[in-house]
Amino acid sequence: MSQIYTRIALIGLGLVAGSLSLATRRAGLAAETVGTSRSPETRAIAREINLVDRVTDTAAEAVKDADLVVLCVPVGAMEAVTKEIAPHLAEGATVTDVGSVKRDVIAQVAPHLPKGVHFIPGHPLAGTEHSGPRSGFAELFDNRYTILTPPPETDPDAVARLRAYWEGCGALVEVMEPDHHDLVLAVTSHTPHLIAYTMVGVADDLRRVTDSEVIKYSAAGFRDFTRIAASDPTMWRDVFLTNKDATLEILGRFTEELFALQRAIRTGDGAHLHDYFTRTRAIRRGIIEAGQDTDAPDFGRVGQRKEGPGE
Amino acid sequence: MSQIYTRIALIGLGLVAGSLSLATRRAGLAAETVGTSRSPETRAIAREINLVDRVTDTAAEAVKDADLVVLCVPVGAMEAVTKEIAPHLAEGATVTDVGSVKRDVIAQVAPHLPKGVHFIPGHPLAGTEHSGPRSGFAELFDNRYTILTPPPETDPDAVARLRAYWEGCGALVEVMEPDHHDLVLAVTSHTPHLIAYTMVGVADDLRRVTDSEVIKYSAAGFRDFTRIAASDPTMWRDVFLTNKDATLEILGRFTEELFALQRAIRTGDGAHLHDYFTRTRAIRRGIIEAGQDTDAPDFGRVGQRKEGPGE
Repeated sequence: MSQIYTRIALIGLGLVAGSLSLATRRAGLAAETVGTSRSPETRAIAREINLVDRVTDTAAEAVKDADLVVLCVPVGAMEAVTKEIAPHLAEGATVTDVGSVKRDVIAQVAPHLPKGVHFIPGHPLAGTEHSGPRSGFAELFDNRYTILTPPPETDPDAVARLRAYWEGCGALVEVMEPDHHDLVLAVTSHTPHLIAYTMVGVADDLRRVTDSEVIKYSAAGFRDFTRIAASDPTMWRDVFLTNKDATLEILGRFTEELFALQRAIRTGDGAHLHDYFTRTRAIRRGIIEAGQDTDAPDFGRVGQRKEGPGE
Repeated sequence: MSQIYTRIALIGLGLVAGSLSLATRRAGLAAETVGTSRSPETRAIAREINLVDRVTDTAAEAVKDADLVVLCVPVGAMEAVTKEIAPHLAEGATVTDVGSVKRDVIAQVAPHLPKGVHFIPGHPLAGTEHSGPRSGFAELFDNRYTILTPPPETDPDAVARLRAYWEGCGALVEVMEPDHHDLVLAVTSHTPHLIAYTMVGVADDLRRVTDSEVIKYSAAGFRDFTRIAASDPTMWRDVFLTNKDATLEILGRFTEELFALQRAIRTGDGAHLHDYFTRTRAIRRGIIEAGQDTDAPDFGRVGQRKEGPGE
């Protein structure tokens, strides 16, 4: 893979930024990666483990002469960090982000950027439940979708270049409208996360079932929920606050359906339950056929492994 | 491992029965395993792949001279199968089951068993989303809990023998009251399954997000739900119909908590969300420390693998 940018500035040094730096190096996509974090501790760790080529103390320094700037901060911090870097951006630079919500991020970032800078919002659909500067790995984006939501007037060359960069990091790239992105993610990610958090919270609250029982007997379904519910609290708080409309819409649909199933249980309507449970199998088959999961029966098993190094 | 039973009869030849037969052979726990299924097709497959030592056409034949009989049929079929085998059970035999619900199974099975037979209800907390005679593998129970719920008057030697058998199959064994079992499982398994089924159903219904989008962008949370929601519909229908009280209780708690989080999103109460999401991380750590899952960051990754052969 050949070099696509000269200098990439990563603002924030968590899971996604760290993985981007390692994926950039793996494929030789930039001459230099520069990174920064508000936290002195995070910056020290990043230096210690050589996470990026150069760590700067401020975001303003990091973006100097960068032709790609990637905002890797929680969605709630996008506006503040944009104001900080705006005066220091190079003419012709591309600014992108990795936020899980797109309409709100555009509203926070776009108004503060100078003319001559290309703003191409993005979202890699890749993550783990781990966070922080030590959590990154080069394979994070491999075979995962990254969605770009450029405004209609965006320079097509800048979009093509950013697409090539993400593909160089291993990702499959799609372009989408921001509002549609937010709705799709409310279904496939945001609402499932809220539900998982809720279920784990209920288990933790229940006095008659002890935490140790929940932990010991978590094999059969709940374990997957706890994995989801271990994700970064700040990131997810910001997701729900900034994708409020779509999340509340999907939550409304969810509770409506849940009440219908609850009524079927209460009234003993086995046919309704069986029909519903049969229908949901088809979606699973589609996901496996699309290569987004394996068919290996690891559900409930100890010893799941990802391919690649990450431990 | 030495032989614990002379002849084990497996009634039903699905995932759990097949895995039991293979685990029994692996450790030499019985001189012979006999199996049967109502379905001629299932019996033919079991013969073809040598799943048990001998396949019989009827449950009555299967239990003849067996010193252990394991009911591996859906919870809703327990009473019918018990009536069928009861006249043919050997004096001193142990009858157990693998149903996900215990109070209801006891009510179905116990009244029909002859004197001189030990009834020790059981439930291995192990499964995959696959079902049928080809889905079994010897490692299914390794390091997983099997819960036994013997009535207080049960012969302790019969319980000890069944415990030794399950341990020989790789399981960790615990004894519990049936009602407590049903409540614990409502929290750790039954309600999470219902929620996952519901969320996948909502995604499938939503007209503005296509099924192909749900499938493509399922990386981030939803994918785990689809795996859960691919489980056997008949088994799960029966679970909800027979563990109605505990499931409805936990569902009530769940919707209460969900409404509180929904209100926090609507009113923009970020502190409430952040506190809630922080608390749920602790449970996850407990599960990993208890050895019931790994800490590998495979969440959202292609290429999950279980240890052992199963494909």
